[in-house]
Amino acid sequence: MPETSTQPRTTPSAAYTPTDRTVPTRSKERAAYDHEVVHAILDEGYVCHLGFVRDGAPVVLPTLYARVGSRLYVHGSTGSRPLRMTGQADHGLAVCLTVTHVDGLVLARSAFHHSINYRSVVVHGTAHQVTDPQERRLALDALVDQAVPGRSGDSRPANAKELAATAVIRLDLEEVSAKIRGGGPNDEPEDLSLPHWTGVLPLAKGYGAPIPADDLAPDIEVPGYLTAL
Amino acid sequence: MPETSTQPRTTPSAAYTPTDRTVPTRSKERAAYDHEVVHAILDEGYVCHLGFVRDGAPVVLPTLYARVGSRLYVHGSTGSRPLRMTGQADHGLAVCLTVTHVDGLVLARSAFHHSINYRSVVVHGTAHQVTDPQERRLALDALVDQAVPGRSGDSRPANAKELAATAVIRLDLEEVSAKIRGGGPNDEPEDLSLPHWTGVLPLAKGYGAPIPADDLAPDIEVPGYLTAL
Repeated sequence: MPETSTQPRTTPSAAYTPTDRTVPTRSKERAAYDHEVVHAILDEGYVCHLGFVRDGAPVVLPTLYARVGSRLYVHGSTGSRPLRMTGQADHGLAVCLTVTHVDGLVLARSAFHHSINYRSVVVHGTAHQVTDPQERRLALDALVDQAVPGRSGDSRPANAKELAATAVIRLDLEEVSAKIRGGGPNDEPEDLSLPHWTGVLPLAKGYGAPIPADDLAPDIEVPGYLTAL
Repeated sequence: MPETSTQPRTTPSAAYTPTDRTVPTRSKERAAYDHEVVHAILDEGYVCHLGFVRDGAPVVLPTLYARVGSRLYVHGSTGSRPLRMTGQADHGLAVCLTVTHVDGLVLARSAFHHSINYRSVVVHGTAHQVTDPQERRLALDALVDQAVPGRSGDSRPANAKELAATAVIRLDLEEVSAKIRGGGPNDEPEDLSLPHWTGVLPLAKGYGAPIPADDLAPDIEVPGYLTAL
């Protein structure tokens, strides 16, 4: 739908190079390649949708991710399909990793101009298994801290058995784009006098009160990094 | 990660038949195939991640969807890639459509047992372009009503020009599974005395106050179907 993006843009310091795959076929004005914009969207999330091809057909699975500089990490059981496929592939596994934040529902006077406000990042590339023990540790800490910054320092690190059961894959940020839609509805001039309510219904975001585990000792208080969220 | 699902299940009246693609390689106890469970997850959302294969590589894009009975609909500009590819393909386009709701962050005493509570549905199948005018109308109304029930009746329907610019594709619910993780952390018995806070941080969901468009006539009030959300 042809609304224009009204999201403010920061001045780019560096940007990803657009490619055939990262230039949208439509609403090109919504695309962004600045590192700052792309990284901010990635850093706000922790669940991505990871796509890969199995027997010629697409598969899309939700999974956790973490960004460390210009790399993304995904982890999982060594038995899970994309992680096993990456480990078996000599040259890595072709993936598409997408992160989406929905910010609001855009209600226009016409059904056609209904839309959503969102910020998404799409990363194309080849995932490789991480085998270096130090990089694996760093990635696993980052995966915990992506959702709850500070948490990796307040939990027991993985032991040898757990490390052996966990696969980590890396995807470099090279072929990357963001897409952003912000602002209100863009109705046709001839629709302005229609009697329908029009505007944006923003999504409320945040967290509820922490629910302690049944077996939590009563003297252990909710840590500051949680109340900070 | 090997936590068990503690989400209550409703008694199934009918279920999707598991296939090689819809039986998970791990955490099988989290999988569900009941129509009731699958449809409830689909009906709670309106943004999916649609995967398809382009030049041998996976592509994952966020897009709106609607469920009507045992069919899902996706729409977009006739110029958008997956919709154009579906229209060009004689036998449809192989897709994977995934819907995910994140319910909470699960903080265990060990980094390894950190997890998220979520409900997801993964649909494998072949998308076909919808050409029947009546089915297209029905799908477009459903796409508006999926996010805001009742809205399609309170907006101007698409005119001929808008209909010509909009492609609608259909994906039948046949090869479908849900995956659900609920409840608290599942720490190892030897970790129970560790001093780390453990429990669940639930995600708050909902909507903020509606923001009227700048050009909305002051006598048009927020409709009941919006305040109901």
